[in-house]
Amino acid sequence: MTAEYPVPRDQRPQQERAQATQAAIIRAAATVFGQRGYARTTLDVVAIEAGVTKGALYFHFDSKHDLANAVIAEQLRLTSLVAQETLEAGFSGLETVVRLNRNLAVQIVDDVVVAAGVKLMTEERVVDLEIQTPYERWTDVYHALLERGKAEGQVRIDLDIDRFTRFVIAAFTGVQVVSASLDDRRDFFDRLREMWEILLPVISSPGCVDQCLELPALIRA
Amino acid sequence: MTAEYPVPRDQRPQQERAQATQAAIIRAAATVFGQRGYARTTLDVVAIEAGVTKGALYFHFDSKHDLANAVIAEQLRLTSLVAQETLEAGFSGLETVVRLNRNLAVQIVDDVVVAAGVKLMTEERVVDLEIQTPYERWTDVYHALLERGKAEGQVRIDLDIDRFTRFVIAAFTGVQVVSASLDDRRDFFDRLREMWEILLPVISSPGCVDQCLELPALIRA
Repeated sequence: MTAEYPVPRDQRPQQERAQATQAAIIRAAATVFGQRGYARTTLDVVAIEAGVTKGALYFHFDSKHDLANAVIAEQLRLTSLVAQETLEAGFSGLETVVRLNRNLAVQIVDDVVVAAGVKLMTEERVVDLEIQTPYERWTDVYHALLERGKAEGQVRIDLDIDRFTRFVIAAFTGVQVVSASLDDRRDFFDRLREMWEILLPVISSPGCVDQCLELPALIRA
Repeated sequence: MTAEYPVPRDQRPQQERAQATQAAIIRAAATVFGQRGYARTTLDVVAIEAGVTKGALYFHFDSKHDLANAVIAEQLRLTSLVAQETLEAGFSGLETVVRLNRNLAVQIVDDVVVAAGVKLMTEERVVDLEIQTPYERWTDVYHALLERGKAEGQVRIDLDIDRFTRFVIAAFTGVQVVSASLDDRRDFFDRLREMWEILLPVISSPGCVDQCLELPALIRA
């Protein structure tokens, strides 16, 4: 098969190199943002961490602000990829919510880009970073899954889904922030499992209680 | 009445001046930390904001780190004063928990020192600030009140108080952080009321449901 707008063969490696450089810069920036926070991060240090010249860095990103937004966007892309797999795995709506939560926690712990993206979203209120989209995306996903949970009979029919979704996203954020601040995230999964042990009885339909209360056990490192 | 160790009259004004200066420096530091975050704050700017010389500032505080810990300690002192009033007002244990939450939110919105203390507790993970004590203090207070709530019959006898306390403090933190990040705290009280609308049915005893479900209405700006 032929692409409709074929890229001339000799340009392709150059484009791929540029993409690889850009990805390396984002990952290096995430490492530095994660270690130092936004305010202490300089583009010089990011360039050194990425192993590129400052000229190469400026070719891809206009400013530190631009770079922080790129980390947040890449965090959203990476978490959306994992979320998509979870969404397609055929679990019930309610089980999918719990599994999404657990998988996001795994990515926050394991992936420097996801960790830095999440950190930038709560840490930095001085400069205006593009944090709305990730919150909106998660809100939409949870909302749809809880609606499905109602249709499937696992979620209480009278649950106020708007209100619960708004709360559970804030509560997840709080569990993550407090665990990071107080315990370097060592107790993150324990806290998250406890959160769902408390919240599942609130949202489960009477017919689902026994089955639904087993879901928090899914939350392990 | 005579004090047991009377301060010589001529020294008292000097001591009072020193205390007033120290309080002014802490308040100025809170203003600057609140506006710029920890990393961007310099002692020069704090001295200007406080209207003191840098020498006077160093007389009271050894470093920025020291000053940030002083803001956190003063935040704890101020919130403890209000909490003490609430604790002594004669409400039930469960109503006291809700009122403490509401009053803390009011202080975060109204008092620059409380706002900065809370911000430093979640924002700054690069330097080691003294954040354990405020979390421990709130944990102890909530724990005792929920135990009282059981004795008074409003709290479900089978509630796991350790687990719930750990969660509710993280959830409050998340509501505060997300509201600050996304909405400059405009929806803070609405989110907090929703949190309690969701959580009170979890912890109320069967006999208290009607009465207990009125408590979230206390949460207003």
